[in-house]
Amino acid sequence: MTIKVYELCGADRKNLFSPHCWKTRLSLAHKGLDYEVVPTPFTDIPKIEGGATKTVPLIRDGERLVSDSFDIAVYLDAAYPDRPALFDGAASQAMTRFIINWSQMNLHVIAMRIALLDIYKALDPADVSYFRESREARIGMTMEDFMANKAASPEELKAALAPLGATLKDQPYLGGETPMFADYVVFGPLQWLRMVSGEKVLPEEGPVAEWFARLLDMYAGIGRNVPVAA
Amino acid sequence: MTIKVYELCGADRKNLFSPHCWKTRLSLAHKGLDYEVVPTPFTDIPKIEGGATKTVPLIRDGERLVSDSFDIAVYLDAAYPDRPALFDGAASQAMTRFIINWSQMNLHVIAMRIALLDIYKALDPADVSYFRESREARIGMTMEDFMANKAASPEELKAALAPLGATLKDQPYLGGETPMFADYVVFGPLQWLRMVSGEKVLPEEGPVAEWFARLLDMYAGIGRNVPVAA
Repeated sequence: MTIKVYELCGADRKNLFSPHCWKTRLSLAHKGLDYEVVPTPFTDIPKIEGGATKTVPLIRDGERLVSDSFDIAVYLDAAYPDRPALFDGAASQAMTRFIINWSQMNLHVIAMRIALLDIYKALDPADVSYFRESREARIGMTMEDFMANKAASPEELKAALAPLGATLKDQPYLGGETPMFADYVVFGPLQWLRMVSGEKVLPEEGPVAEWFARLLDMYAGIGRNVPVAA
Repeated sequence: MTIKVYELCGADRKNLFSPHCWKTRLSLAHKGLDYEVVPTPFTDIPKIEGGATKTVPLIRDGERLVSDSFDIAVYLDAAYPDRPALFDGAASQAMTRFIINWSQMNLHVIAMRIALLDIYKALDPADVSYFRESREARIGMTMEDFMANKAASPEELKAALAPLGATLKDQPYLGGETPMFADYVVFGPLQWLRMVSGEKVLPEEGPVAEWFARLLDMYAGIGRNVPVAA
C-alpha cells in the first residue's frame, strides 16, 4: 500500500524544502516503500487528516497516522522490520536523538540566520502573514532587522559542521558503512538551504560536501532532482 | 587475568585526571573486568612497554597492547563479548565517533580554556617544561597570555553542553536506558575539569548535572571517589 506523506510546500508546490520532511522522504526511500507526497502550505497543516497534527511531516500508512520525523523512522523500522533498518539497535536510536539535538541547535539555527528571508520569499501566498508573525514573535524583531544584525555566513555553517567532517574522514556515513536515519537528520537542513538559498552557501569541497553529494544521488537522485535556488 | 592500564598522573600519583583515561577506566568498569592502574607522567609515556605508544591510555591484556580509548573500547567488546556491551552494533559505534569529535571540538576546547593553568599546576615536576613547550607551541602564545585572553566561563561550557542536556530530557543516558561508551566519552572532559579546576566550573543543576552525578556514583563510585580541586 502506498504511504501518504504530507510535506510543507512553497508557492511552487514542487518546492518541498522542509528539512524535517526531507528526513522522512529519505527514510521512506531507504526502506524502499512506495509513497505519495501531498504538498501542504503551513496554514493548511491544521486542516489535514481532521487536525491530526500541528507539524509536518505526517504520514498515513493504512489506518496509522504518525508525525515527527524521528517517530516516523521508529514506526517504519517497527512496521517494516524486513526492510533496511533506519536504526541499528536501541543505542543507535538513543544516539540519534543527540544528533537531532545537535543539528537543531547548531545547523538549523545557522540555516535560519542564512535563509530566513529566502524561505519567506518562497512561501505560498497564504502562508506569508502567518510566517512573518510567528517568526518575528520568536526572534523578537522584524525578519529584516534579524537578517541585518544576525545573518550568518557560509563560513559559520562550515565551522558548525566540523564534527561531522572529522567523522566522515573515518567512515563514509554517520551511520557507518551505509547511511542510517542519523545521516538524513543532518541532510535535512543542508538540503533545505540548497533549495531556498542555493548551493553557494554549502561547503564546496571536503568530506561533508562529498557525503552530501552521495546522499543527493541516492535513491535515483530524489535529493538531487529538485528545484534549487540560484 | 588483570588488565594493566597506563594512565596519566600528576605530581600526586593518585591524581589521574586525563579525560581519555577516564573513558577507558569506565569502559573497564562497565565490562566488570579486573584492572590495575599504572600512574604515568607525560614524560614517561615514551618509555612504557618498550615505546608502544605516544599517548595514554594504553592497556596490556595478556599479550595484547591497545592504545586510544575508542580502539580500547572496540577491543574490549570484541575480546569480552559476554560482558555488557560498550557499543550496540555497527551504527552505534559509528555514531560514537561523531560524539567523540563533537566532544573534542567543543567540550575539550572549552575545558582547555578553563583549566590550562590548573592542569599545569597539577603536573608531575618532570612534566612541567614538556607541557609548557608543547602547549605553547600549539596555542601560539604563553599559557598565561592564553588564559588572560581566551579563558572560557562556566557559562560557555553550559552552552556547549546544550545538545546533551536536551537529549537527557528524553532518556537517562546518551546510550539510552543504560550508559554506553558514548556516555564515558562525554564524562571524560567533565571529570577532568572536576579534578583539576573543581566542581564550581560544572553545571550545578539540570539534566547534565544529574546524568554526571549518576555516572560518578556508578561502579562503586570510582568516579566520585577521587581527589577534587577546591
